[in-house]
Amino acid sequence: MDQRQIYQLLCQVRSGAVSPDEAAGRLTAETEPEMRVGNYADIDLHREQRQGMPEVIYGEGKSVEQIAGIAAAMKEKNIPNVMITRLSREKADLLRSYEGLGLEYEAVPHIGFVNRKETEKRGKIAVVAAGTSDLPVAEEAAVTAETYGNFVERVYDVGVAGLHRLLHRLPALEDANVVVAVAGMEGALVSVVGGLVRCPVIGVPTSVGYGANFGGLAALLSMLNSCASGVSIVNIDNGFGAGVLASKINRQSVHE
Amino acid sequence: MDQRQIYQLLCQVRSGAVSPDEAAGRLTAETEPEMRVGNYADIDLHREQRQGMPEVIYGEGKSVEQIAGIAAAMKEKNIPNVMITRLSREKADLLRSYEGLGLEYEAVPHIGFVNRKETEKRGKIAVVAAGTSDLPVAEEAAVTAETYGNFVERVYDVGVAGLHRLLHRLPALEDANVVVAVAGMEGALVSVVGGLVRCPVIGVPTSVGYGANFGGLAALLSMLNSCASGVSIVNIDNGFGAGVLASKINRQSVHE
Amino acid sequence: MDQRQIYQLLCQVRSGAVSPDEAAGRLTAETEPEMRVGNYADIDLHREQRQGMPEVIYGEGKSVEQIAGIAAAMKEKNIPNVMITRLSREKADLLRSYEGLGLEYEAVPHIGFVNRKETEKRGKIAVVAAGTSDLPVAEEAAVTAETYGNFVERVYDVGVAGLHRLLHRLPALEDANVVVAVAGMEGALVSVVGGLVRCPVIGVPTSVGYGANFGGLAALLSMLNSCASGVSIVNIDNGFGAGVLASKINRQSVHE
Amino acid sequence: MDQRQIYQLLCQVRSGAVSPDEAAGRLTAETEPEMRVGNYADIDLHREQRQGMPEVIYGEGKSVEQIAGIAAAMKEKNIPNVMITRLSREKADLLRSYEGLGLEYEAVPHIGFVNRKETEKRGKIAVVAAGTSDLPVAEEAAVTAETYGNFVERVYDVGVAGLHRLLHRLPALEDANVVVAVAGMEGALVSVVGGLVRCPVIGVPTSVGYGANFGGLAALLSMLNSCASGVSIVNIDNGFGAGVLASKINRQSVHE
Amino acid sequence: MDQRQIYQLLCQVRSGAVSPDEAAGRLTAETEPEMRVGNYADIDLHREQRQGMPEVIYGEGKSVEQIAGIAAAMKEKNIPNVMITRLSREKADLLRSYEGLGLEYEAVPHIGFVNRKETEKRGKIAVVAAGTSDLPVAEEAAVTAETYGNFVERVYDVGVAGLHRLLHRLPALEDANVVVAVAGMEGALVSVVGGLVRCPVIGVPTSVGYGANFGGLAALLSMLNSCASGVSIVNIDNGFGAGVLASKINRQSVHE
Amino acid sequence: MDQRQIYQLLCQVRSGAVSPDEAAGRLTAETEPEMRVGNYADIDLHREQRQGMPEVIYGEGKSVEQIAGIAAAMKEKNIPNVMITRLSREKADLLRSYEGLGLEYEAVPHIGFVNRKETEKRGKIAVVAAGTSDLPVAEEAAVTAETYGNFVERVYDVGVAGLHRLLHRLPALEDANVVVAVAGMEGALVSVVGGLVRCPVIGVPTSVGYGANFGGLAALLSMLNSCASGVSIVNIDNGFGAGVLASKINRQSVHE
Amino acid sequence: MDQRQIYQLLCQVRSGAVSPDEAAGRLTAETEPEMRVGNYADIDLHREQRQGMPEVIYGEGKSVEQIAGIAAAMKEKNIPNVMITRLSREKADLLRSYEGLGLEYEAVPHIGFVNRKETEKRGKIAVVAAGTSDLPVAEEAAVTAETYGNFVERVYDVGVAGLHRLLHRLPALEDANVVVAVAGMEGALVSVVGGLVRCPVIGVPTSVGYGANFGGLAALLSMLNSCASGVSIVNIDNGFGAGVLASKINRQSVHE
Amino acid sequence: MDQRQIYQLLCQVRSGAVSPDEAAGRLTAETEPEMRVGNYADIDLHREQRQGMPEVIYGEGKSVEQIAGIAAAMKEKNIPNVMITRLSREKADLLRSYEGLGLEYEAVPHIGFVNRKETEKRGKIAVVAAGTSDLPVAEEAAVTAETYGNFVERVYDVGVAGLHRLLHRLPALEDANVVVAVAGMEGALVSVVGGLVRCPVIGVPTSVGYGANFGGLAALLSMLNSCASGVSIVNIDNGFGAGVLASKINRQSVHE
Repeated sequence: MDQRQIYQLLCQVRSGAVSPDEAAGRLTAETEPEMRVGNYADIDLHREQRQGMPEVIYGEGKSVEQIAGIAAAMKEKNIPNVMITRLSREKADLLRSYEGLGLEYEAVPHIGFVNRKETEKRGKIAVVAAGTSDLPVAEEAAVTAETYGNFVERVYDVGVAGLHRLLHRLPALEDANVVVAVAGMEGALVSVVGGLVRCPVIGVPTSVGYGANFGGLAALLSMLNSCASGVSIVNIDNGFGAGVLASKINRQSVHE
Repeated sequence: MDQRQIYQLLCQVRSGAVSPDEAAGRLTAETEPEMRVGNYADIDLHREQRQGMPEVIYGEGKSVEQIAGIAAAMKEKNIPNVMITRLSREKADLLRSYEGLGLEYEAVPHIGFVNRKETEKRGKIAVVAAGTSDLPVAEEAAVTAETYGNFVERVYDVGVAGLHRLLHRLPALEDANVVVAVAGMEGALVSVVGGLVRCPVIGVPTSVGYGANFGGLAALLSMLNSCASGVSIVNIDNGFGAGVLASKINRQSVHE
Repeated sequence: MDQRQIYQLLCQVRSGAVSPDEAAGRLTAETEPEMRVGNYADIDLHREQRQGMPEVIYGEGKSVEQIAGIAAAMKEKNIPNVMITRLSREKADLLRSYEGLGLEYEAVPHIGFVNRKETEKRGKIAVVAAGTSDLPVAEEAAVTAETYGNFVERVYDVGVAGLHRLLHRLPALEDANVVVAVAGMEGALVSVVGGLVRCPVIGVPTSVGYGANFGGLAALLSMLNSCASGVSIVNIDNGFGAGVLASKINRQSVHE
Repeated sequence: MDQRQIYQLLCQVRSGAVSPDEAAGRLTAETEPEMRVGNYADIDLHREQRQGMPEVIYGEGKSVEQIAGIAAAMKEKNIPNVMITRLSREKADLLRSYEGLGLEYEAVPHIGFVNRKETEKRGKIAVVAAGTSDLPVAEEAAVTAETYGNFVERVYDVGVAGLHRLLHRLPALEDANVVVAVAGMEGALVSVVGGLVRCPVIGVPTSVGYGANFGGLAALLSMLNSCASGVSIVNIDNGFGAGVLASKINRQSVHE
Repeated sequence: MDQRQIYQLLCQVRSGAVSPDEAAGRLTAETEPEMRVGNYADIDLHREQRQGMPEVIYGEGKSVEQIAGIAAAMKEKNIPNVMITRLSREKADLLRSYEGLGLEYEAVPHIGFVNRKETEKRGKIAVVAAGTSDLPVAEEAAVTAETYGNFVERVYDVGVAGLHRLLHRLPALEDANVVVAVAGMEGALVSVVGGLVRCPVIGVPTSVGYGANFGGLAALLSMLNSCASGVSIVNIDNGFGAGVLASKINRQSVHE
Repeated sequence: MDQRQIYQLLCQVRSGAVSPDEAAGRLTAETEPEMRVGNYADIDLHREQRQGMPEVIYGEGKSVEQIAGIAAAMKEKNIPNVMITRLSREKADLLRSYEGLGLEYEAVPHIGFVNRKETEKRGKIAVVAAGTSDLPVAEEAAVTAETYGNFVERVYDVGVAGLHRLLHRLPALEDANVVVAVAGMEGALVSVVGGLVRCPVIGVPTSVGYGANFGGLAALLSMLNSCASGVSIVNIDNGFGAGVLASKINRQSVHE
Repeated sequence: MDQRQIYQLLCQVRSGAVSPDEAAGRLTAETEPEMRVGNYADIDLHREQRQGMPEVIYGEGKSVEQIAGIAAAMKEKNIPNVMITRLSREKADLLRSYEGLGLEYEAVPHIGFVNRKETEKRGKIAVVAAGTSDLPVAEEAAVTAETYGNFVERVYDVGVAGLHRLLHRLPALEDANVVVAVAGMEGALVSVVGGLVRCPVIGVPTSVGYGANFGGLAALLSMLNSCASGVSIVNIDNGFGAGVLASKINRQSVHE
Repeated sequence: MDQRQIYQLLCQVRSGAVSPDEAAGRLTAETEPEMRVGNYADIDLHREQRQGMPEVIYGEGKSVEQIAGIAAAMKEKNIPNVMITRLSREKADLLRSYEGLGLEYEAVPHIGFVNRKETEKRGKIAVVAAGTSDLPVAEEAAVTAETYGNFVERVYDVGVAGLHRLLHRLPALEDANVVVAVAGMEGALVSVVGGLVRCPVIGVPTSVGYGANFGGLAALLSMLNSCASGVSIVNIDNGFGAGVLASKINRQSVHE
């Protein structure tokens, strides 16, 4: 039970919809203690049912032991599609030796999966990438979106210095509910795409480049200052965040 | 006829859906020359019908004469709700003296309107602002969204240092299709809101603050690094851009 | 009732210390609606009794009308010592014409007071400033601390380029429970003071300087990298924040 | 006689092409002393004949008296087309009262002229600008290029968010020997133009924008990281420098 | 005898409390020469008795030989709890081979100990950390504080994107005299904690994050601009400094 | 067929110069599908004939497999002089084992060649470098320019702190149509060269330096602010871009 | 008596050169209390005799009342040549009305003098400036150096884009003991001068420039990275600091 | 013969002191061609006799072959004390295998010597360093100064957080003609030393530190903004540059 639910419960108490006894009962049934792993993690076991999105482990800066501990605890609770993002190949190799974990690893986007399941897909997200070097980030967005139940169309290597490549692929963007545009260097792809499509566009600057690129800063500032409207941005190289946001927008947009 | 339409026409020619003669006829009927104002502007008269959004004039850096010239040309074409953003009170006062322009001015968000019309509204956008000083940006987002046909709920002065204020207003966010979160200082509002709602959240950092705020850089970086997923960002003080993007998401999300 | 109190109440319900009925009763008695001023402010009327510190209005970026509205509402609730920080002389002059507000204005630290009262003082805070130009920030810290019930000793114009001036004043720092060190330029004062006193030191970088000072960045970085331990920092020119923190430390340190 | 000429003279002495006596004679005939104005300026009277480009006065940071003194000295030597760049309207109004100076002032690019003459023009430079707010910089480039004897075609208000505007004007760029592309915001215009034309492209970032634009830094970094080849950059708002460089390239490219 | 003591002695001489002869005697008894190690270090042997805190060796940038030399000299003087901070595992392994040094190594916070002793503890410090990746810095603060004689309560993995986790742990913060809040990414934890507790809060930004995090800059700026009062900051990843400062505040706050 | 050609075709249709049928026929003959390599690259096979410059592969951030795939596809189409820039020695060694690729590798500028052919050369470009450490970037420019059919004169180790070295080599710059000036440290070479030659100068800042050089930022800013006119800049370490631009300028300048 | 003198006295006590009684006597005779002005300033009356340099008042950020108070106190003590640096014309006009102060004002370098006296001059300092706009800073250095008793030779408007101007003036630098080189824009003057003269060179970057100059940052970084040895730097626009340092070097260098 | 000498020769020709024939003869005798090494270096063989300082090789970014080539050419010309700065231990080990080169290597300051000779020393330079980690930079300054013929006094580990350590060593600074102050972290040492000594002070910021130190930026900005006069700065970690400048000042200051 998270704090929003606690608050809602109290509102119901106040309004009379729920009796104080009932409220106290629900609070007592709270099961959080078993969610703690070691002294270093506090897993949110109810997130899937609440947000419709699987819990995610950010792999960078965690030891292999910590990752294994958290993932095993989640698998035991039968949480499906536990994603481990930013998981280096070295850590993935070590994690494969943990018996019972059953890690699957996608090498390009550096994502590990535990307890992977097929998901049902609805609605379409287009992931557009400027250059071949931007693929790891683009794939992180694409694989995230697929895992969260969306169809994904990949439109890669369409940088604006050769506009015709993007224009040839325009029909692929027509029926998308949201476009994720991934680009390093000067990031101009976002402005051009933003001027061509009707749906929301999420820009993902990448750290691809050198010199006055400053680790993606050039693309980031360029996208933030885009003269196209209807465009917003996530952090440099944050394909995962773009995938999550695109999923939320797509899901809302699917009319049945 | 914009270049996407030109390209689509050619695709139809290629597929046989449209004959070359028909295509040539449509191209000849193209009327763009009359859209030019002086040597300084090239107005897009078909944008309303194409994108469902009124053309907008960015008021900063343009002279009063230029703004008046562009707005008059658009009014003559009967384009409704011509918005002039970032319009200072000084320029607005001067523009009011232009006969026949009929400028209306919203002082808080610094927006001018020419040929203002009532718009039909559907679906709800919540605009959340951390402090009283963030209101000009929040209102720019809110007024933009209203002009583009969305219901807007304003939730102001709910900075995270007094969490209870935000929590008391949570029900107002429940049925929004998208939340615009406006904050200066450290911009933590976006992370907290992002963790509390299900729908997409658009963060707008503001330049409110001093010292190591560096004109909104602190809030911008904070929001970009938000540990909450499903969050994206627009430029510092870009209430207009957030309003446009929120409109696009809300419109897609309305099921009828 | 803030959200911490709500949570504590529920803990008491869960533990049996408070009955559900009692809890619901307390929640119903909650009176927050009357705290709203216009659509732009949401005042925390219980803060004084909860935190022992008067509510504060940040004057920058608020209109005179907004400031007057908030201050009047607080005065009506008889909240003592309503401080308006970063209040320009121009706004102060306009606020003086608001009947019944009774604004008092301290010109050096740019602080306005409404419903000012004498406070009882305990324990000592030393405010040390490097140069005469740093006085507005130093006084903001000093006046804040006095308003919150602390004795303040001012030790001004003791920059490290003339070490003897600081050393002559060392005895004044001996019995302070906390030192606030205010400096612009290169901010070295904090490192030197940090090496000379036993108590906690709060560094306040100021924007005094020019050229590669970059609006206080030089002093800020210098203080953050101080080789002295037991030192922490607040934002550039944030005398108010230092005054509040010093008050908290001093209050805890007074043994009776 | 500049130091390159001194050195060449010595090389001729060394090779025997010029006798030592002859060399000493030429050095003695040197007339530089009369070029000094007050103690603050040292004018290069032979620059026109050497570089084929009129001497230029950078107006910012010079007093009206200094500008008048330098311009008068140059006019007296009958140097044609003395340009005063970055000349504010206020200074221009004051300079107009200097008798005999005969200042002419172009208000949009902030350029003053003394001893203005008609120049013969050859070859074509295209100046492309993204938005109406970029005109002062674009005009600085255009007027500079015209003054230096080049035909200039202006292609304004063709930002990439509405690609069709640029594509409609493409024929105007076909026969240019060099394109100057002027843009603020995210500066993507340079990448798109760089991918569409064969000739060299000079990017001029402008300080148009707000927030994370940081006074033109966003456009500057974007242009520096352009994925299009054959593109180079001058300083933010440096229309003059772009005009000079474009003149050099155009002049070399004219075949007769 | 440090320079503060020298000065105090002279004050006593001036006031008559100590005779000049006595003063000269004390100065002569000064024993500093034996504190020098090689030509690279000048150890402060009296610091423990003066400040109540063990001397500390900053391990980064020092060779293993230098660290061993300094630590051995201190152990010989029987200084307890010699801490070596930022000591890499590689150096620690090499130092273990130094006979007689008896190095103990805490791997998570990268701290080495020589001559480690049990310390008596009084009063409580809470160390709060946003994510698992922030543990090395949090543990540096916690172990430092324990070494300096404070009880420490660890509250880890309570990032603000899942507010309920922090709220569930609130009771653990209730009786702390000071809270150390450790967070990377956007650092919003400090603002939220600052609004929830009464005692002083020390923010420690960490370098955890990527992209526009810029090595902890995002968290640093966020914390500096916190809208919560009573909060101050130490350098990025400076868990040690936070631990020392927290110790000073806690020690002052313990009433017996 | 790129989008400029599509647009030109339509203009001809509109003007009657080409019939719609003819236009449709040309569009249908379009052969682009075979240009795709895997899902990661979209090669522009007609670029050589269109722009007169060989296609280039940016080697950084691409896997060896991707580079080999693209290069092999291009070789199969008999595209001459396929350049792979920023190709590390490690990748080059691996690529050499790909049968049939026939990679040649230039170690100093880190450029690989596939299907290398002799090119005919016309006109002269001078490449000037400040120090020995700048050679990799200078050679990238020089080898690029030679590959694109230009004579290149190398003038190396002529930093401005020993002006005589540059002055001794001045005659080598006399008959160049364009000068590429490569410098790290403070980049002053560009200003000095810009004041000495008549032709256009392209500045290439390098990342050579340390401390407040910030990876080439010092040289970049220095060059952007050059007081010499007729100078423009490319990205830090972008020898390739300078080589391409110099080629374009030189080619235009050759009169036959 | 400053803290260095206190320490030296104690050393003499320790060595027996001065008796404790004598030492105590001297300390008692200390007269510092009368040096305090208001609560905002602590004047160092013995500095002239100790350092041979008149006390200086930094005018920026001080009120007219504060400046007048300090200057009057110093004049009363008959301190000669009291300099007030960075004194705006507005403040100077107000200070002229203070009776008995006798302010003299140098408008170009913005320096005020109280109790101005003729000084005896020895040895030569050359002040070199790149452009006319750099004169205020160059004059601040020159006037400071003259006030402190040095001959100054001014060599102005010798920017490196026209190297011959600097070379013509080289003889003026031959017999200087130190050169102060003042330049904005790209600051290359320092590297070139540093390579031409034997004596120490002090670089002063100025804030002259625009765009990517960033208020003098470009010149600052350029000078710090100078490839010439024997060069050091002071803060942007810090002509005063350069003048003081040049005086120290020149004074040491004068052999009599 | 460098370009200053060429110019002086011409001045003598102009004044009649040297006949044209004589001048031509001297120019013809010029021997520069043999100074070139490969195509990558242009050695200045007369520098020792002209500037009294041995030629220096900057080792970073040069290959071992290039360093060996340059050093061997210089040794062959019998240039004494060829210094190779920033020479890594790896390169030094490789260079030792070059027969006949006779490399000597100082490991702490990373300096290699070829043809090392004893130098006569005069006058005293003090090198002061804040911490043990600053030693490599401090030693680079010290060894450079000794090589150039100065006595050096080392005063190490005297950071300002323990002021007494610096004060105890003050007598060592008394008779120095110049002080080099080396410090990382917050760099406050320079301000404190600058306030204690009479002679010029050269600050050398080091990259020692972490977090918001940003590779030495904190110390650099701190030193640039020093409130002490008579202080100037060289680049971060530039011990060599400080050593050269100190040598120039010391040499001028020695009176015989």
